[in-house]
Parts: sequence; C-alpha cells; structure tokens
Amino acid sequence: MYFCIMFEDKKPTRTPLESLGEFGLIKHLTQNFSPKNESTQLGIGDDAAVVAYGSDQGLVSTDLLLEGIHFDLSYVPLKHLGYKSVVVNLSDIYAMGGLPTQITVSVGVSNRFPVEALEELYQGIHLACQKYGVDLVGGDTSSSKQGLVISVTALGSCDASAVVHRSGAQQGDLLLVSGDLGAAYMGLQVLEREKAVFEVNPQNQPDLSDYAYCVGRQLKPEARKDVVELLQELEIRPTSMIDISDGLSSEIIHLTQASQLGCAIYEDKLPMDPEMLKLCDEFKIPNTTAALEGGEDYELLFSIRPEDFSKVKDHPYLTPIGHFKAKEDGVHLITGLGQQVELSAQGWKNFKG
Amino acid sequence: MYFCIMFEDKKPTRTPLESLGEFGLIKHLTQNFSPKNESTQLGIGDDAAVVAYGSDQGLVSTDLLLEGIHFDLSYVPLKHLGYKSVVVNLSDIYAMGGLPTQITVSVGVSNRFPVEALEELYQGIHLACQKYGVDLVGGDTSSSKQGLVISVTALGSCDASAVVHRSGAQQGDLLLVSGDLGAAYMGLQVLEREKAVFEVNPQNQPDLSDYAYCVGRQLKPEARKDVVELLQELEIRPTSMIDISDGLSSEIIHLTQASQLGCAIYEDKLPMDPEMLKLCDEFKIPNTTAALEGGEDYELLFSIRPEDFSKVKDHPYLTPIGHFKAKEDGVHLITGLGQQVELSAQGWKNFKG
Repeated sequence: MYFCIMFEDKKPTRTPLESLGEFGLIKHLTQNFSPKNESTQLGIGDDAAVVAYGSDQGLVSTDLLLEGIHFDLSYVPLKHLGYKSVVVNLSDIYAMGGLPTQITVSVGVSNRFPVEALEELYQGIHLACQKYGVDLVGGDTSSSKQGLVISVTALGSCDASAVVHRSGAQQGDLLLVSGDLGAAYMGLQVLEREKAVFEVNPQNQPDLSDYAYCVGRQLKPEARKDVVELLQELEIRPTSMIDISDGLSSEIIHLTQASQLGCAIYEDKLPMDPEMLKLCDEFKIPNTTAALEGGEDYELLFSIRPEDFSKVKDHPYLTPIGHFKAKEDGVHLITGLGQQVELSAQGWKNFKG
Repeated sequence: MYFCIMFEDKKPTRTPLESLGEFGLIKHLTQNFSPKNESTQLGIGDDAAVVAYGSDQGLVSTDLLLEGIHFDLSYVPLKHLGYKSVVVNLSDIYAMGGLPTQITVSVGVSNRFPVEALEELYQGIHLACQKYGVDLVGGDTSSSKQGLVISVTALGSCDASAVVHRSGAQQGDLLLVSGDLGAAYMGLQVLEREKAVFEVNPQNQPDLSDYAYCVGRQLKPEARKDVVELLQELEIRPTSMIDISDGLSSEIIHLTQASQLGCAIYEDKLPMDPEMLKLCDEFKIPNTTAALEGGEDYELLFSIRPEDFSKVKDHPYLTPIGHFKAKEDGVHLITGLGQQVELSAQGWKNFKG
C-alpha cells in the first residue's frame, strides 16, 4: 500500500538491495555527502570517523526511530523521514546551546525495500545535512526482519562556557518557548484520519492542502538553529534549555526536576497557530491539551534571567509562558480562569499498550 | 522458549516495562554507570552528553544490532548480548589506533520483555564499560514492535599523529593478525546445532563445555585493547589497521582497496585454535574457509613496515600472515600447495535471502 504515497517518482524503478552488496550500498547512498566542517577530519570509509574539536566541548546525542512506533510508512514519505530523523537529533544539540557538526546514521531495512526507497531516505538525510551544515561521517546498513529501523547520532561542539544544561534555572527566571505548540500533534491526527479513509477506499487520495502547516510540522519539523543564533546575537545565555520532543508538560518537568525548582505557566500565554486551533475544534481535542501533551514540536523551551527580558520582549517567535518558582510551590498551569492545574509528564506513553 | 536460557536467575521476577515509565526506565537501567573518563563532562540526563577532547582527535563509530539478523535470543544470553554490542563498537575505535572513552546505547524493546531482561542486557553493557574503561553517556529506550534493536555509538580519542587509517599501507609492508581466526564462526555453528536439537526436544539442555572456547568467542568476544597498547609500547605505528568483523577476506580487501595495493597471504600461516580445528572436522567445514570468511573474531588486522618486524617476531599472539604487493598483483591466498586463490569479499551476505 505505502509505495503509492511513499514515492515522489510515480513509476519507480526497483533495484533489489542485494544487487549492490552491503559496502556498495553504503557507498551508493552516501556518494553525495561531502564534508563541510573543519572538524571533520575523516568521514565514511574507515572503522571510525575522526573529528577534532580544538578547545571546544563535544556534544553527543542519539535517537532510535522504529517503524510502527515512531513513524508509519503508510503516510510518511521516506524523504521526509530521513530529514526528520536528522533534525530530531540536531534539535538536541541546539538545546545544549551548541552547534551540530557531524552525524552518523545506521539503517536496518528489509528486502521489501528497493534501493530507490533507501535513496529517498538518504535524500532527506542529505537535505537536512545541507540545511544545517552537518557532515555525515559514518554509519551502518543492515538487513532487518523487523521493519525499518533508523538510528542517528549527532555530534556537536560548543564553547565550554556556553553549554546550557537543564539544571541551571534559578527561581524567578522566565520561561520562554520558541514558535508555536501542538501543531505537529494535530498534523498527526489529520494523517491518521486520512489513513483510515484510505484503508476503506484506496481510490480516495487525500487532499491535505487545508492542513499544510500542521501536516508539515509533523512530517518535516525543523530544529531551531535560528533561536540559538539569535540568543547568541542578543548576548542572552539561557539558564536552562530543552527541546520539545515529548510535549511541553513533560519538558517543563524535566527542567524543574533538573533545576530542583517549581514552575507556573499560563494557559493564555501558550502560543498556538490558527490552523492548529481550527483542527482542535474539528477533532474536539482541547487545544491546551494538544499544546501541553502533543509533542514533536522541536521548539526550544528555555529560561532567562529577568534582567534579560527586555532584549526579547515582543519578539515575534519567542513567547514568555511562565516563570520558575521554589520547588515546594509545585509545577502548575494557571488556567484562563485562574485555576492551578498540576502538570504531569506523559513521557512514558510509548510503553503503554 | 528463550527465557529458560536467557535468564541466569532461574526464577525470574517479571516487572512490566510500563511500570517504570520511559524516563524511570533509563534512570533505573543506568544508575550504576558512573563516569570515569576526564573527558566525560556530562553524562546521561540532558539533551546531549558533553565530551571534551583537548588537543586529541575524536573518533566515532556506530553499530546497529537487530534480533534475527545479528543475534538469536534463543541461545544468546542478554548479558552477553549487552557486552558484545559494546565490544564490537570499541573494537572499531581500537582499529583506528585510538582509545574509546564514551558510548551511547539506544534500545528498542517490545513489551514481551520484563524489566529484568533489560537489566541483564545493561549488566552486560556495564561489565564492558568497566572492563574497557568507557563511560555510558547517553541513549534512548523505546518500545518496539519489531523484536530487540540495539544501537551503540562509541566515541574515542587519539593523538592526532597516531590515528591509523585503512589507507596507509605501503608495498612491502607485512600484514599481521592478532589472536586466532574462525573460532567465533565455529561457535555459532555449535549454538545453531544445539538450538535445532533443543527445538526437537526441549528437555535436552545443551552441554557446551567441550566447545567452551569457540562458543565463548561467539557469545562474548573481546576487543584487542591490549594489542593497541602493546604496539604503542613497542613503538610500532601500524601503517594500516582494521578489525575483523565480517571475516579476514573481506577486511583484507578493505585494506587493499583503501591503500590501492595488492596482497598475498599464506594459508599455512593463518592462526587457528585446536578446538576450532576439531570443530571444523566435526562439521566438515574446511578450516581455511572458516578462518577466511567466518567473521566476528574482532581481532586486529594490521600492517607494519618490514623494519619493525624484529620487534614482534615470535610474539605469542601476533602472527604475520602475508605482505602487501603492487595493486596489479591482485589479492591472493597462497595455499599449502603453492596455488594462488583470489580472495573475494563476503560482506554483503547480510542482504541475501
């Protein structure tokens, strides 16, 4: 079923994987990747890549993406999947205040995929490498009996004094978020609905143009390199920072736990896109719930000292949503009606069911 | 079926994965890992780990291990699997002449595994970290619909002038191998045979004591840190080096291609263990084939300049097996009868079938 959606090329050629051989396949898939970072001393083709960081500190982040858990190939184009697998890792490096420089990508894939499918995946990886200026320096491809498996590790660097930890927030610091929240989650709802329609009637090709923003947020998220650069420009060093992968609630709890603080955020401050709000109405999902628990926004959530606030006040894509309090004050959402609702982490949902 | 073999504890407690939650699970599994390397500035618990390398060069290597492709849980104990997943990555760092310092481990696992099973996996990971002096600094655990998935990335460092590439061999350099060859492959044959017996009669618990060496080489391989240290001590800088994961033939072809050379190795020089030879007889597998194509030995294959040979002559675990020639001379095994047999890579076998 998925090939009709997965391929941009309508009449795909199918080259069986085994025709290239493992080493030939890696070479074939990575031939367009050329190192751009000075720190990349040696890329693909030896036992290990060689990176040099000078006096900076190295950053490492890694993610595993599994078919049926993290993505559904019936509506995720492979090129987007490749792009997203890189972006979610880079997002972690930016969330440390660093700049990513290298990635490794390992892929496990069954013989039901032709070489062209992997090419699309690597096209997306390549696009992300180009956009964010990172070098692919290694990896592994393997047969899989178990659906598509993608593991990405990102390396980055940061001036030692500029690394931003989750644990650095102080009482009174303001909590800000970049961009808007909940749109990737609502995009997922649209894709799941269209999949269900498609399964009943395969002739019914989905028209997603009314939901372009939210679907785009789900399929092709971006990492907020611009925010890290902006903060450097404004000479603001965040006191704590995290990227929003599991959902705002869950990330706030990470920051408060690491910093041993409490926190209050305000429902009416949460930034949401009009299309996302419209979709919440359509799906009868409370928009605050989507913003708090949705996840996969890959926005940056960070705290700044109050005296830095004037530098970012009224910035079009940075929104203050609350502030840190003493630990004993707890972690709360203040609703539009002034009620306090305790926030809880939903990060374990992956293990349910 | 596999639980009876997998668990060392005969009456295992089963704690469902979802009872700990994702973040609780990571914390639980990694609580005994404490950083030992000075370069580990920040480990698990933030978006990315922080490593500092000073003036050294950083090395990165990564591997993906998939159930049903790289391991069979019906006879691989999880503790051994954890150990091996780390060792195969460290082996790549040693093969660059470097010393590994950090690893990240991502695991995808289905709900059929209780927490205790993952604990055994991480016990093995912990053991490898302790033995090789590396720090676990990050990773990811996720639900999987697709069997057990393990992705390990190793970071290491090396003095910039000491990095050993595959491409540095010169005509006339001698080719040496550490340890012995083919035993891991023969161990796999024993385990596959015992599995078949067990499937017919589950009462029949295998007695593997006669095959302890070969089975051990398969289940719990070691990386040759000692060889890298020995070469440093002897002040020998290998001109090229690779670790033997896919098989001697395949690795020799990698070295000759990277160095643009030919090579001759001698059948009667290939180091083999007596138990491995006995097993080859038993299974009617030519021992030269097992040594050349078997793979998973994780020995180091390296070249040295002829003038360094006197320093390693008659060393108990370093065996000279051949030498590099001009590219046009080809890549050959010289048999005991003096025949030349062309070597071919078998590295693509994973994609067959």
